[in-house]
Amino acid sequence: MAAPDTRRSAPARGPDLRTTEVRPTSPGDGGPRVDAAELLSFAERVLTSYGLPTERARPAAEALCYGDLCGHPSHGSANISRIYLPALADGRIDPCAEPRTYADRGAAVLVDARRAPGLWHASAAMDTAVERAQRYGVGLVSVRGATHFGCAGHHAARAAERGMIGIVAANCGRQRIAPPPGGRLPLLGTNPLSVAAPAVPGRPFVLDMSTTAAPTGRVREAARSGRDVPAGWLADSNGAPVTDATAFDRGEAHLLWLGAGEAARSGGAYKGFGLALAVEVLAALLPGAGLGPADGEEGEDDVAGRRDDDIGFIAAAVAPNRLREGFGADARALFSAVLASPPADPDEPVRYPGWHEAELARRHRREGVPLPQALLQELAEVADTAGTAPPSVIGGR
Amino acid sequence: MAAPDTRRSAPARGPDLRTTEVRPTSPGDGGPRVDAAELLSFAERVLTSYGLPTERARPAAEALCYGDLCGHPSHGSANISRIYLPALADGRIDPCAEPRTYADRGAAVLVDARRAPGLWHASAAMDTAVERAQRYGVGLVSVRGATHFGCAGHHAARAAERGMIGIVAANCGRQRIAPPPGGRLPLLGTNPLSVAAPAVPGRPFVLDMSTTAAPTGRVREAARSGRDVPAGWLADSNGAPVTDATAFDRGEAHLLWLGAGEAARSGGAYKGFGLALAVEVLAALLPGAGLGPADGEEGEDDVAGRRDDDIGFIAAAVAPNRLREGFGADARALFSAVLASPPADPDEPVRYPGWHEAELARRHRREGVPLPQALLQELAEVADTAGTAPPSVIGGR
Repeated sequence: MAAPDTRRSAPARGPDLRTTEVRPTSPGDGGPRVDAAELLSFAERVLTSYGLPTERARPAAEALCYGDLCGHPSHGSANISRIYLPALADGRIDPCAEPRTYADRGAAVLVDARRAPGLWHASAAMDTAVERAQRYGVGLVSVRGATHFGCAGHHAARAAERGMIGIVAANCGRQRIAPPPGGRLPLLGTNPLSVAAPAVPGRPFVLDMSTTAAPTGRVREAARSGRDVPAGWLADSNGAPVTDATAFDRGEAHLLWLGAGEAARSGGAYKGFGLALAVEVLAALLPGAGLGPADGEEGEDDVAGRRDDDIGFIAAAVAPNRLREGFGADARALFSAVLASPPADPDEPVRYPGWHEAELARRHRREGVPLPQALLQELAEVADTAGTAPPSVIGGR
Repeated sequence: MAAPDTRRSAPARGPDLRTTEVRPTSPGDGGPRVDAAELLSFAERVLTSYGLPTERARPAAEALCYGDLCGHPSHGSANISRIYLPALADGRIDPCAEPRTYADRGAAVLVDARRAPGLWHASAAMDTAVERAQRYGVGLVSVRGATHFGCAGHHAARAAERGMIGIVAANCGRQRIAPPPGGRLPLLGTNPLSVAAPAVPGRPFVLDMSTTAAPTGRVREAARSGRDVPAGWLADSNGAPVTDATAFDRGEAHLLWLGAGEAARSGGAYKGFGLALAVEVLAALLPGAGLGPADGEEGEDDVAGRRDDDIGFIAAAVAPNRLREGFGADARALFSAVLASPPADPDEPVRYPGWHEAELARRHRREGVPLPQALLQELAEVADTAGTAPPSVIGGR
């Protein structure tokens, strides 16, 4: 998505939206930490200093810090200087843009975000979907002209907080990141999909996944730390597996689809690709946003130059309590049964997507959010430029 | 989903709903074929003879023959004697049951199918969703008490025929087929998900996938023909790979999730499992249908005895033409760009889910539907019992 990444001169493929991992990660105990509330207020002040109105800066900061809190640092405050401030500075995000409603059919609404900050607007769109669902049983807000909104799961979870089922999906604008099965050139983005619902109290179900085997952020993370990626994430133009993470930003390897690691006979990659197409249709074709596949055949050079402007996304909510009684209790029973499912390893109980994230957020609110030293340095520089105080460090060696 | 399978005495796990494959299959050229229209009218007569009212028998027969026409024979007329007639005979499907609307909020409706034939009712539910989408922009029909409906993609494609986006998903009732990642016992069904949309004229986009690495039908198909399955489809209770297809119905192997074939670090299995949970929530928790995970911990024996009664499904439609102009042309451009994407192998052009199915259906309507000799024999027996003529064979050695 994204502002040019100054750390490389390779083809401009920005970080994608975000994705679920087996388990969210934390930089580890004993390192430097910052108070969660202080990190949030810092992010809010910085976004305000870049022109976001007060009523937008707070929800945008919450969406941003969700990544740090929940153990998905590739979508947290690291993106302040990597994505959001550069995009605000060069006008690709317009902090004050007023989204315009193009059509309103009651339960479904089409909105042009007009480059408004996605971090704020995706939550605002979900709030509208929730309000429509309260009236019609289901609400759907279809958005074009959108900008990078951080973790899809954060916005989907707003519906779950209100006892509803929330769905958020986005394409990556005109970016092409992964080739179709049997294809030679990238065609679609990593097209994230999130579904959230009430589950065990305090621990909502939050599926938040890219439709590729891995998101770009994790490949770049491996490249930066000099690690290889597992076979099954990347392949070259002939389909041969690539494990050198740095090959991705050199344009010598493409991301594979979810399921591509399975035997060809199973058709796994075709499912991941199909899911990505379903997201492209629902999130971007529906509102008329920028599309990955739209302008016919292109050469390698053209592909690399495509950008993630004019992102399309969908925010939908379903209101079970408008349809029947007992949904909340049934949800608790369902997810309690998942948690009680006998584990293969007694020390590794069965969990559902969203459980570890909620657990980690709770711990980070209590003990502080661990941030790597390099990121703290970056945030101090951001604070300096914005003329505000950086979050104070409360731990560390 | 299913009537007891008389060909085995193993734990009662019925065939699942259906799933996409890399490419649909056909029993091959030169074998016996039946005229497509004759097969359809035969299925209609048989269903009528088992009590389906005329106005239900035709759409039900269409849903059934879709599997044969489109190259997914595991969900075609083979299921007449394997699933539908036994379930009609023992009352698990009630041919005349009148579905009852429990709540109606305009765009969203909750329906109890009361064991009405799913082959017919899933299409009827989609028609209601389409009608609501025409009025409110989006329409959602949430169904409990449902029975096996065949290919999800057939019902989702009804929306695409009307220029809309269609979504169909179902759980497998109370059946437990695949264990959660890190779990020892099965917990959820194969929970199919389908998304359909207009694409290139005559060839709609139809994603139709199980959320497991493979559906049960393909495992049983391999077992019947004495073939192993690829590593990545099945594992034993300790997570060790199993390639012996017959181990599945002996209860010695479980299905793995989509993405499970990837390196553990990628979290692939967690995504497939998360998608299955998302389907369980949307299709079954929402309407209050039977759930896989609902009654807490159970032993191996209890798991095997669970049935696919009280299936939940969702049929949803979104009406792009109620929100903006130009959707159809944009859809054509998007999917034309997919088809024009440069292939790695010039003889294997890039395709999207639904393309091969439409191609095969066209060919089968022209040249006849190839059916294996054993199935023709079965259909002759069905015809005999129903007191009607079997479809006449138009080819074969």
